Amino acid sequence: MIKTAILTLLAIATSFSFFLFPLPPKSFYHSLFISSSLSDNASISHHLYTLTRRPHVAGTQANAEAANYVLSTLNSYNIPSHIASYQVLLTYPISRSLTLKPNRADPPVHFELRQEIYDGDPYADVAGEVLPTFHAYAKSGTVSGLVVYANYGRVEDFDTLKEMGVNVSGCIVLARYGQIFRGSIVQNAMKAGAVGAVLYTDRKDYGGGGGDAKWFPDGKWMPPSGVQVGSLYNGSGDPTTPGWASTEGCERISEEEVEIIGDVPLIPSLPISAADGEKIMESIGGPVAEEDWQGSKGSPVYRVGPGPGVLNLSYTGNQTIATIQNVIGVIEGKEEPDRFVILGNHRDAWTFGAVDPNSGTAALLEVASRLKKLQKFGWRPRRTIVLCNWDAEEYGLIGSTEWVEENKEMLSSRAVAYLNVDIGVGGAGFHASSTPQLDELLKKATQQVKDPDNSSQTIYESWLGSSNSPVKIGRLGGGGSDYAAFVQHIGVPASDMSFGEGYPVYHSMYDDFIWMKKFGDPMFHRHVAVASVWGLLALRLADDRILPFNYLSYALELQKSAKDLEDQVLGKGISLAPLFKSIAELEEVAANIETRKKEIEESKAWTSILTRDRMTVRELNDRLMMAERAFTDPDGLFGRSWYKHLIYAPSKHDDYGSKSFPGIGDAIEEAKSMDSVQSWSFVQHEIWRVARVVRHASLVLSGKLT
Amino acid sequence: MIKTAILTLLAIATSFSFFLFPLPPKSFYHSLFISSSLSDNASISHHLYTLTRRPHVAGTQANAEAANYVLSTLNSYNIPSHIASYQVLLTYPISRSLTLKPNRADPPVHFELRQEIYDGDPYADVAGEVLPTFHAYAKSGTVSGLVVYANYGRVEDFDTLKEMGVNVSGCIVLARYGQIFRGSIVQNAMKAGAVGAVLYTDRKDYGGGGGDAKWFPDGKWMPPSGVQVGSLYNGSGDPTTPGWASTEGCERISEEEVEIIGDVPLIPSLPISAADGEKIMESIGGPVAEEDWQGSKGSPVYRVGPGPGVLNLSYTGNQTIATIQNVIGVIEGKEEPDRFVILGNHRDAWTFGAVDPNSGTAALLEVASRLKKLQKFGWRPRRTIVLCNWDAEEYGLIGSTEWVEENKEMLSSRAVAYLNVDIGVGGAGFHASSTPQLDELLKKATQQVKDPDNSSQTIYESWLGSSNSPVKIGRLGGGGSDYAAFVQHIGVPASDMSFGEGYPVYHSMYDDFIWMKKFGDPMFHRHVAVASVWGLLALRLADDRILPFNYLSYALELQKSAKDLEDQVLGKGISLAPLFKSIAELEEVAANIETRKKEIEESKAWTSILTRDRMTVRELNDRLMMAERAFTDPDGLFGRSWYKHLIYAPSKHDDYGSKSFPGIGDAIEEAKSMDSVQSWSFVQHEIWRVARVVRHASLVLSGKLT
Repeated sequence: MIKTAILTLLAIATSFSFFLFPLPPKSFYHSLFISSSLSDNASISHHLYTLTRRPHVAGTQANAEAANYVLSTLNSYNIPSHIASYQVLLTYPISRSLTLKPNRADPPVHFELRQEIYDGDPYADVAGEVLPTFHAYAKSGTVSGLVVYANYGRVEDFDTLKEMGVNVSGCIVLARYGQIFRGSIVQNAMKAGAVGAVLYTDRKDYGGGGGDAKWFPDGKWMPPSGVQVGSLYNGSGDPTTPGWASTEGCERISEEEVEIIGDVPLIPSLPISAADGEKIMESIGGPVAEEDWQGSKGSPVYRVGPGPGVLNLSYTGNQTIATIQNVIGVIEGKEEPDRFVILGNHRDAWTFGAVDPNSGTAALLEVASRLKKLQKFGWRPRRTIVLCNWDAEEYGLIGSTEWVEENKEMLSSRAVAYLNVDIGVGGAGFHASSTPQLDELLKKATQQVKDPDNSSQTIYESWLGSSNSPVKIGRLGGGGSDYAAFVQHIGVPASDMSFGEGYPVYHSMYDDFIWMKKFGDPMFHRHVAVASVWGLLALRLADDRILPFNYLSYALELQKSAKDLEDQVLGKGISLAPLFKSIAELEEVAANIETRKKEIEESKAWTSILTRDRMTVRELNDRLMMAERAFTDPDGLFGRSWYKHLIYAPSKHDDYGSKSFPGIGDAIEEAKSMDSVQSWSFVQHEIWRVARVVRHASLVLSGKLT
Repeated sequence: MIKTAILTLLAIATSFSFFLFPLPPKSFYHSLFISSSLSDNASISHHLYTLTRRPHVAGTQANAEAANYVLSTLNSYNIPSHIASYQVLLTYPISRSLTLKPNRADPPVHFELRQEIYDGDPYADVAGEVLPTFHAYAKSGTVSGLVVYANYGRVEDFDTLKEMGVNVSGCIVLARYGQIFRGSIVQNAMKAGAVGAVLYTDRKDYGGGGGDAKWFPDGKWMPPSGVQVGSLYNGSGDPTTPGWASTEGCERISEEEVEIIGDVPLIPSLPISAADGEKIMESIGGPVAEEDWQGSKGSPVYRVGPGPGVLNLSYTGNQTIATIQNVIGVIEGKEEPDRFVILGNHRDAWTFGAVDPNSGTAALLEVASRLKKLQKFGWRPRRTIVLCNWDAEEYGLIGSTEWVEENKEMLSSRAVAYLNVDIGVGGAGFHASSTPQLDELLKKATQQVKDPDNSSQTIYESWLGSSNSPVKIGRLGGGGSDYAAFVQHIGVPASDMSFGEGYPVYHSMYDDFIWMKKFGDPMFHRHVAVASVWGLLALRLADDRILPFNYLSYALELQKSAKDLEDQVLGKGISLAPLFKSIAELEEVAANIETRKKEIEESKAWTSILTRDRMTVRELNDRLMMAERAFTDPDGLFGRSWYKHLIYAPSKHDDYGSKSFPGIGDAIEEAKSMDSVQSWSFVQHEIWRVARVVRHASLVLSGKLT
């Protein structure tokens, strides 16, 4: 009751343009933001329902309409918004065929490659708008060959086949999804000599392990006909505009040049269902695969081949320049309009996208709605908050990357942080990743928000679980979502989070509102919670006088990663001393800056209105903001120079895998295979490069010229 | 009298820590700075005398002592200063010999390679400290061959020889100094097949044209024994640390790797005097060289050879890691301590360095002294002023480059401008170069300072001369002085200036205090003037509420440079449209920002104390400051990626030559020699790249996210 009275009073007061009494402190608004009085699960559910009524793949009319929905919703919240369009290379399927000749005697099996509509599916009328299952940027062509089973298609899986004496050359690889980026599976198959690849969804991973697990709509698991579609593109952004924005009439490289760069596969492939995968598996003879390679209960025995089954695979895709729409909303900061706290989520989906990504989109709109309410109560952010709804993430992080490439000069000097949510909710359990200076803030924010699945404790407590170890915060080296351009290309501090880790109907036509309502988040409380944590991070970053960045965590993380290198270079005459030295220096400077932050925080509040003090705080904040940029190097990673960040980048053989010191890792891998003096001295060079960027970060944090 | 009274009053007032009356406006202090009451030609003369008592080549004890003199002088002016040391690769001569066998009959001539001490030379006692004449980073070795005369050693000169049927292969080239960078002469000779090169000082260029011109000490011209020494290094910074700072114990590449990079010559060379050059010339037969290639009155007829004279050239140098000292002084800004206006001049000299560079060093100390006086009268800069005295410029801009490489992250986000003076005074006549947004400020500053050689008019009026055309402002694409790392590597707006253009005793042992006193600037009034303009530029940049940058001049310059390209790509299917479009956009945004500047300037003065207003101005200034950065591209120029600036960089065949759109220029040159579809499409790509950085600059200036 008292709270309501205060809010009413505030609402009345703010309806006048001038305040006769001071506004409440920012912390009041932050508490209000995460309070139940501002949250609205019904609205979230409505947004999600509206956004997912039809499939909305990037470049389609349906997705342009979804963009307009986001735009008009933001504008209705009095958040000035606009659409930033790009013309980018997308691909759509034209024709597909897959035939199995189990052996010489049996008749060929033609696969229908169709996901089944269940009885009573409310989306049956628009199911025809779902694209035929395909791999974006797959190579068009017709191939046939004996089938070889390659487990998850990792480098080590192909190594195992080689050790078993299985020659993949000229064969078609059958591999299952789930351990690495699908594009990397096809690349690895190609490198092993395969002429084509077929990727299936094993029940063991997505089907509840077989047995009596129930599939959608009766249970949460992937139906036997369900197919995971997705992109094979290994880079970031429009493949025809590497490093620059795909604006209208811009320069583009040719398809041949795209292929030379090597981020698209050069052999045809298709995604298939668990049922089709099993059928092909039954046609494979040869040695029985090891235990780890086997399926779940009730699956046939998996053998590696080659053959006797022969697959004939044909795919034709249409590569076309399509228009995509990013929606950008801006809440201008009052004191520091030129400092940007950026929230981003993508909108385009392979099918209906209830989990991926529109649970995040609905959460974004919930954050926007609550920020509008805060404004009604007199709040305005100190710094500018930018809300971004990206397009064409599914094809290769395209919308976010093109926007970053276009605005990189401004973002490099003005972006405080980028907060990503891709899948907002796919189940229970909080998961987060960040650049390490945000670790502390992540912990604090989750300590303020109740666990939606256990109201007796905070999200932080559930995240911590019963173990004594600290919460597990992932890092942002992977290429899995729209943080990539921000972190890996221009060095902006960032985070990513979700409820649930993986969900069975991933990238299939069953990822719809019904699935969410029944299994993902029936009450939309997890959506409310993800919006609370996301918005709270943004509010702290936008409002705190001193930016809530702690570089001690960064130094600690770097130290751990450096320790991990020790074994790998043992006995190779490599010195890690420069790296350890630079990290020790960073730790020292980070400790100093923590002391300095405390001094300023403890200085009397009234001094904060003095210009001198404002500039002092701004200067300190600029150091905290720019230190992350210092981890980038203009030359970027050797052989993949778009990746400028020398601490975090994707693994070379798994675009989803996050690597610390990727340049050193690449060099060690090369050196291990070459084992020449030259290749090991290149490892030393890469160690030096990392040591130098760490030193640059220390210099920036210290704020001193040498 | 009134002025003196005001100053006394101010001095008294400022001796109290708190002002009861407001300080005078910044413009008062700026006028005071250039007034005769603060300038001190006697002190300048004293500084120059002290700095040039002994030769002080980089890496020597004498130059470390000179650093201490600068350091203690700055500290005595209450400017907190320190030394930033680096360990860098320098070279010194160990042994040299040059022998001419004029023809089969004549006995060989051994050259003494020694500059003569004249009667009464006050520096005779320290002349032994002058290094033997040599080329820094020359290849050690012994070669012999027929002599070929190659004029100024430019690409077109070697083309001419080729057309004349003169085969340079296996020969030793005799070329004269004065049109291009000496390192480029040796490189061009090597490319033409020469096995060695000998560079001499022609009387036509440095000797007053022969005839009755008097040489030093009787006249200003180079004596017949005078030798121009200098570096052949074609890059910027320590050759063993490309792209990173040469701190103690840092990573270094090997001598072999340095040679592979290609910025050091691979054939031996020596510099020689006019007298020795003439002697060799007399041994050359063959066709008579064309008129332009001939010497001055009284010179022999120049022929091109080859031979019959045969030269035997031997050089051994010592490449060694030496310690160099940059002196850095910092006057902290009151309102914006984190914005740097940087003044720089180098200290190291090939010999005594009275003109090059210590006329500039003396001017730097004069600026410092006047700033100290201003502080006594209550002035403090709004932004931080950094005074830099660089080391090892002569070897290859090493001190400044290493410092920029070490501090590049901080400088990239905080440096407002870099103001260079290398040679401060070498004669009469003002000369300046700048990035174009500084053009207007340069004109205004020179309009406020009297011409030291004609007190009836300003420097600007003399600079303008009697012509109706605008003053000629050079650009900073060349690699001639310490602005290179600031402009070409990290994109900081910059200027460079001097009185006098070229001076006859350049890089010889005659560049001493006596020469300056007799011929360069007898009354040190030109030194006073260069300090006035230099300091005034710094004061305006450090004190003006709105940064005095005008990007309309930039757009205009770009337009001119783009027009120059039209003829070069005619009929090759190349479109310059993207470039012109981006420039038109820049022009529009630059006009808008001029309007915005006026609005703010005209807003009431009292608003300037409001925090909101301060942040508005700061934001605008950040756009003006950062727009120059946007002209850089992380990939840099193709094949020479240290050069990040796509508008200004050195010409590939003359490190002193400044080029606009160097990447486009390189590509056109390549395409003209290849004339393939691919090579011309690379030209188009380079045009696109420039168009994109110009667009980025527009976006930064506009301050808007797309």
